[in-house]
Amino acid sequence: MSSLRALLGEAHVLLPSEHGAHDLDGFQRDWRKRYHGRALAVLRPADTAQVAAIVQLARAHRVALVPQGGNTGLVGGGVPDASGTQLLLSLQRLNRVRSLDPANLTMTVDAGCVLQNVQQAAQDAGLLFPLSLAAEGSCTIGGNLSTNAGGTQVLRYGNARELCLGLEVVTADGQIWDGLSGLRKDNTGYDLRDLFIGAEGTLGVITAATLKLFPQPRARMTALAACESLRQAVDLLGLAQSQCGASLTGFEVMNARALALVQKHFPQLAQPLGPQPWTVLLELSDSESETHARGQFEGLLEQALEREIIADAAVAGSLAQSQAMWHLRESIPLAQSEEGLNIKHDIALPVSRIPDFVDRCDALLAQQFPGARLVNFGHLGDGNLHYNLQSPEGVDPAEFLRAQEDAVNHLVYDQVMAHGGSISAEHGIGQLKRDELAQRKSPVALQLMRQIKQALDPLGLLNPNRVL
Amino acid sequence: MSSLRALLGEAHVLLPSEHGAHDLDGFQRDWRKRYHGRALAVLRPADTAQVAAIVQLARAHRVALVPQGGNTGLVGGGVPDASGTQLLLSLQRLNRVRSLDPANLTMTVDAGCVLQNVQQAAQDAGLLFPLSLAAEGSCTIGGNLSTNAGGTQVLRYGNARELCLGLEVVTADGQIWDGLSGLRKDNTGYDLRDLFIGAEGTLGVITAATLKLFPQPRARMTALAACESLRQAVDLLGLAQSQCGASLTGFEVMNARALALVQKHFPQLAQPLGPQPWTVLLELSDSESETHARGQFEGLLEQALEREIIADAAVAGSLAQSQAMWHLRESIPLAQSEEGLNIKHDIALPVSRIPDFVDRCDALLAQQFPGARLVNFGHLGDGNLHYNLQSPEGVDPAEFLRAQEDAVNHLVYDQVMAHGGSISAEHGIGQLKRDELAQRKSPVALQLMRQIKQALDPLGLLNPNRVL
Repeated sequence: MSSLRALLGEAHVLLPSEHGAHDLDGFQRDWRKRYHGRALAVLRPADTAQVAAIVQLARAHRVALVPQGGNTGLVGGGVPDASGTQLLLSLQRLNRVRSLDPANLTMTVDAGCVLQNVQQAAQDAGLLFPLSLAAEGSCTIGGNLSTNAGGTQVLRYGNARELCLGLEVVTADGQIWDGLSGLRKDNTGYDLRDLFIGAEGTLGVITAATLKLFPQPRARMTALAACESLRQAVDLLGLAQSQCGASLTGFEVMNARALALVQKHFPQLAQPLGPQPWTVLLELSDSESETHARGQFEGLLEQALEREIIADAAVAGSLAQSQAMWHLRESIPLAQSEEGLNIKHDIALPVSRIPDFVDRCDALLAQQFPGARLVNFGHLGDGNLHYNLQSPEGVDPAEFLRAQEDAVNHLVYDQVMAHGGSISAEHGIGQLKRDELAQRKSPVALQLMRQIKQALDPLGLLNPNRVL
Repeated sequence: MSSLRALLGEAHVLLPSEHGAHDLDGFQRDWRKRYHGRALAVLRPADTAQVAAIVQLARAHRVALVPQGGNTGLVGGGVPDASGTQLLLSLQRLNRVRSLDPANLTMTVDAGCVLQNVQQAAQDAGLLFPLSLAAEGSCTIGGNLSTNAGGTQVLRYGNARELCLGLEVVTADGQIWDGLSGLRKDNTGYDLRDLFIGAEGTLGVITAATLKLFPQPRARMTALAACESLRQAVDLLGLAQSQCGASLTGFEVMNARALALVQKHFPQLAQPLGPQPWTVLLELSDSESETHARGQFEGLLEQALEREIIADAAVAGSLAQSQAMWHLRESIPLAQSEEGLNIKHDIALPVSRIPDFVDRCDALLAQQFPGARLVNFGHLGDGNLHYNLQSPEGVDPAEFLRAQEDAVNHLVYDQVMAHGGSISAEHGIGQLKRDELAQRKSPVALQLMRQIKQALDPLGLLNPNRVL
C-alpha cells in the first residue's frame, strides 16, 4: 500500500478501513444496488502512466484489479467482490479532452471523461458526438466503450464500438498500447481495438479513445405513431427506413402497459395519442432544415395511415414538444421503479422475429405467471427490447422476484435463444449474466473467449470472474 | 491425400504433379503476378463441414493451409509459398446465398459468394449491399471480410467490417463456430467476429457471413469539381459533409497527373473539367428523388464556388454521365498499368493531415528521385490515398523499380508514420508488407497480435508467415 501511496499520493488511495461505513459506497456498490463489494483499496490515478504503474504493482503482488468509470453499469461489472482483496481502479481523474480535429471529424479523450462532457466538447466545436443514453450525466466514455454501450441513436450511428476509431490501453502486463488512431481505414493486423471494446475491463484497461464526430444536423424532429400490433410497428420501421434513409435516427416502441405506468406515476406528462396497443416514437435528424424534416415526416405518416400501418400520429410542433415525447419514453424505467421491483431483460432479436417472439413469450408468461404485468419497450430499430416483468397487482414485488425471477428468466431466455436473439443487447454480462452466458453461449465461442483471456491476462488479475 | 480424396471427391483435390505447368496458376499465382507459389494440393470443399474436416486432417498431419477466395488480393496473402508443402484451401464452391431477411435488412451468404452476386441478390430483393470495389466481379465476400475490404462507399457505409453482423468460422482445431447473428446489438462477450475479420485467414477460416443490407436510394448522382489544392479539396469535403450529411456516399480525389495518364491511354474518355490541379468526384445517394439530389448538389457547389473552394464543377445530367465520371476515376490504375510498372502505396492518414503529408512527401520524392512521376488519387473522404510513383519519363520502369523501390517505400512510409497514418489502408498485409509491419507497428501491438495468434492457432498452420 505504501508504494501505491508513493505513486498516487495519499489522497488518491482510499482504504475502506480508514473511511466511514458508507463513504466508499459510491465505488463499492453498483447503481442498481444489487452488488455491494468491499475493495482492498480505491485507487484514483491521474494519468495513463499511473494506471500502468498500478497494473505493474498489482501484477507483482498478484492482486486483482477492478476498473471502474462512472459506476453506472447495470450488470455488476464495475464493483469489487466482497472479499476485500481486489483493488478498485477508478478512472474518473483521467478526464481531459486531449484534442479535437474538426477537419478529420475526430476527438481524443481520456477514458474518465463523462459522456455528457464529451458530447458538450463536440457541440462547442459545432459537431456531434451521437452516443446518448440515460446515464450520460455520470457514465464515462471508458465505461461506455468497455461495455459497448448502445442508447437512443444506434439506428443511425451504431453502438459505442462503431463510434471509436482508436484506443489507448494498459495491458495486463502493465504496458501502454498507443492505438489512438484517427484513421477510418487501417488494415495493419488484428483488430485489437474491438477486442478491448466490450471486454468489460477483463483484457486490459482502456485509458483513452479517439472518437468519430459528425456534422450537427440542422433540424431534429420527433413524432409519435399508434400501431395496433408490433407487426405494424415493424412494417412502419421498414417504410421509415426506405423513405427517410439515414435521416431516421430513432425508432422506439412502447406497449400500452408501459405508457399506462407513466400515466399512473407521472400524470403531469401529456400523452398526445392517448392509450394505444403500441406507440412508436420516431426521430428524424435532418441535414437541411426543419421544414424539410416536417415534410419528410408528413409524407411518411400519411403513407402509413393510407396503408393502415398506423391508426394515428402526432408530429412535434416545437423542440419542447419533441422533448416531451422523449420524456415519455425515458420515464418508463422510472415509472417501473415507482411501481416496485421488477425483472428486467435487455434482449436483442432480429427485427423480423420480434413480433413472433413477443406473441409466444407473452403467452407463455401469462400461462405460467398469471397476472404478471409485461412492460415492453425499447429500441425497435435496433431489435433491442427492454422486456420487463412487473409482479401481479396486489402481489409483493420482492416476494414475487424471490420466488419467480429465475423461472421467469429461464423462460424468457429460452425464447430469446429459440428466436435467434441475444440475452444481453447493450448492458453487457458483468457478474449478473455470467452464469447465464456460460449456459447459453456456443461452447466454441466460450472456448475462443477463454483462450483469448488466457493469452492476454494469463494471471487472471483483470476484473476476474466477470464475463467469463 | 487419399483421405482428402475420399472426403472431397477426386475432382476436388487438384495436384500440381498431375496438372500442366500452368493449369493451377489461377490458384497459385497472385493477381499482380508478384507471387508464384506451388501448393501441395488445391482443395475445393463443397461446404463448411468439409472445410472443418480438412482443417482437422491438416492439423493431424501438421500441414499448413492457405485459404483463398477469388484470388484478387494485392498483397500475396492468398497464394501458397513455393515450398510445395502448403494446402491451398479454395472456398469458391461455398457459393450459396443462404437466406435474405428483408424486414431485418440482413442476408446470410457462404464465404465463396462472388461480391457481385451478393450485390445482385440484395438488389433482386429491392435492397442494397453497398460494398463495392474494382474486383467485385471475381472477389469473394469471404476474402473481402478476411482483408476488411474498403472500396468506394466507405464514407457512408463503412468498411467490410462495418457491413458484417455475424460469421461462421472454422477454427484452427477444426471446430465450427456458428456466430451467424443477424443482431445489431449483442454484448455477450468478446468481439470474436471482428477478430476474424481482417485477420487474413491466419486465425480461422471464414465460411459464411450475415451481412447488413440497406434500402436502395431513390436516386444517385455524381459531380466533378476542380480544386487548386488538396487543402481546398479537404475544405470541400467538410462543406459537403455538413450540407449533405449521410447522402454523401463518395468523395474521390485525382491529381492532374492521374487524369493526364487517363487522357494519354484512354483519349476516348471525356474529361468534362479539362486539366486541373485536383479533380474531386462526389457522389450523392438520395432517399427522395433525382430532383432533390440535384438541388443538393447545386446548393453545395454554388456555395463552394462562392467561397472559392472550387474553381469549376459539372453535375452529371444522366446516369450515363455519372457512370462516365466514375469510369474516369476507375481508369487510373489501368492507365498506370499501361504506362508501365509502378510503385503503389495504399495509405491512410487523418484527413486533416493529408495536405501537409502530400506537400512534404512530394517535395522529398522530387528531391531524391528527380523526374519520378506521382500519380496520386483515392478515397479522400476516408483519408485513403493511392499514392503511386511512376518511373521518370525515358527510364525503364523495371530498372527503376529494381533500383529504387525499397528506398521509395522507406521514404513514403516514414512520412506516413510521421503524419499519424497507416501503411495499409484497405489492402491488408499478406506477404508484401509483413516485414514492413514488423518494423512499423508498435511493439506492444505486435506482441498482443502474437499472443492472440499463439492462443488461437498454436501450431501455426493457418496461413503461416502472413501478417505476422
